Amino acid sequence: MGSASVIQTNPELDLVLERVVDVPRELVWAAWTKPEHIKKWFTPAPWTTVDCEIDLRPGGIFRTVMRSPEGQEISGAGCYLEIVPNEKLVWTSALSPGYRPAIKGTGTGSCEELYFTAIILIEAQGTRTKYSAIAIHGDRATSKRHEEMGFYQGWGTALDQLVTLAKTF
Amino acid sequence: MGSASVIQTNPELDLVLERVVDVPRELVWAAWTKPEHIKKWFTPAPWTTVDCEIDLRPGGIFRTVMRSPEGQEISGAGCYLEIVPNEKLVWTSALSPGYRPAIKGTGTGSCEELYFTAIILIEAQGTRTKYSAIAIHGDRATSKRHEEMGFYQGWGTALDQLVTLAKTF
Repeated sequence: MGSASVIQTNPELDLVLERVVDVPRELVWAAWTKPEHIKKWFTPAPWTTVDCEIDLRPGGIFRTVMRSPEGQEISGAGCYLEIVPNEKLVWTSALSPGYRPAIKGTGTGSCEELYFTAIILIEAQGTRTKYSAIAIHGDRATSKRHEEMGFYQGWGTALDQLVTLAKTF
Repeated sequence: MGSASVIQTNPELDLVLERVVDVPRELVWAAWTKPEHIKKWFTPAPWTTVDCEIDLRPGGIFRTVMRSPEGQEISGAGCYLEIVPNEKLVWTSALSPGYRPAIKGTGTGSCEELYFTAIILIEAQGTRTKYSAIAIHGDRATSKRHEEMGFYQGWGTALDQLVTLAKTF
């Protein structure tokens, strides 16, 4: 079935970060799919990602533990939906591993409660990469909350960190 | 990625209907994937399925409208996750089409509120088919509610109807 899936973005409900970055898409893919890399870029400083688990299969776990400078931890385990190497990565926080519907209040911290599906699209532009990160929400309230939590700045800063890291590969 | 996905059933949370039926698996697959067939078997009589929409791609819509003898309608639109022809069909009510997280209270009737992921596995046994329908839930309360709504009898009766229909193909 591969990349012939259904993506329907809605400007009222979704948040999109789009940028061309100066690293090849294979390195962007590597940064997104290996726990040791995720730990180095995924959380905008001064927060850190202290743990990460990746089972890169549909239904497989994508788990991160983020820690604030004060030591507060937010953990969440989502589930991969689509994996097209060097092209597309889709996961959701609305399903736990094994496609199990997530239940509100079972994560630690507030992130678990924010259900969204993330679609990362990467496309070669010479040696650079067109990068799109799309957060898909169920309603306007959740989308607005995600935006107010600092989606654009947070995901933008994390992308800067990803690029800085990928240049060291 | 195909069939190498992650399925982790949990007897505390999941409901499983398993049976060997006397029709080839290609016909079971057809019955599950064409709206005109779904309308004829999906809902245990005296309920009927009066409408059905299928976009058989990951992220694609699976929508049904069920009607009671008194005219009450229950509609719900879920989303396909995996399609492996003649082998495995996975969809969830926890995501709307396009992998959009479902929002409680937006469907009509009570079915929309019951989040589960359905996994249909079919396997040839000569000219017969080993049929497994697994309903994956996020917590025990939802699983129990689904069981009390008549999961075993409902899905069993629907399977009888599927077999009767498939024999006419």
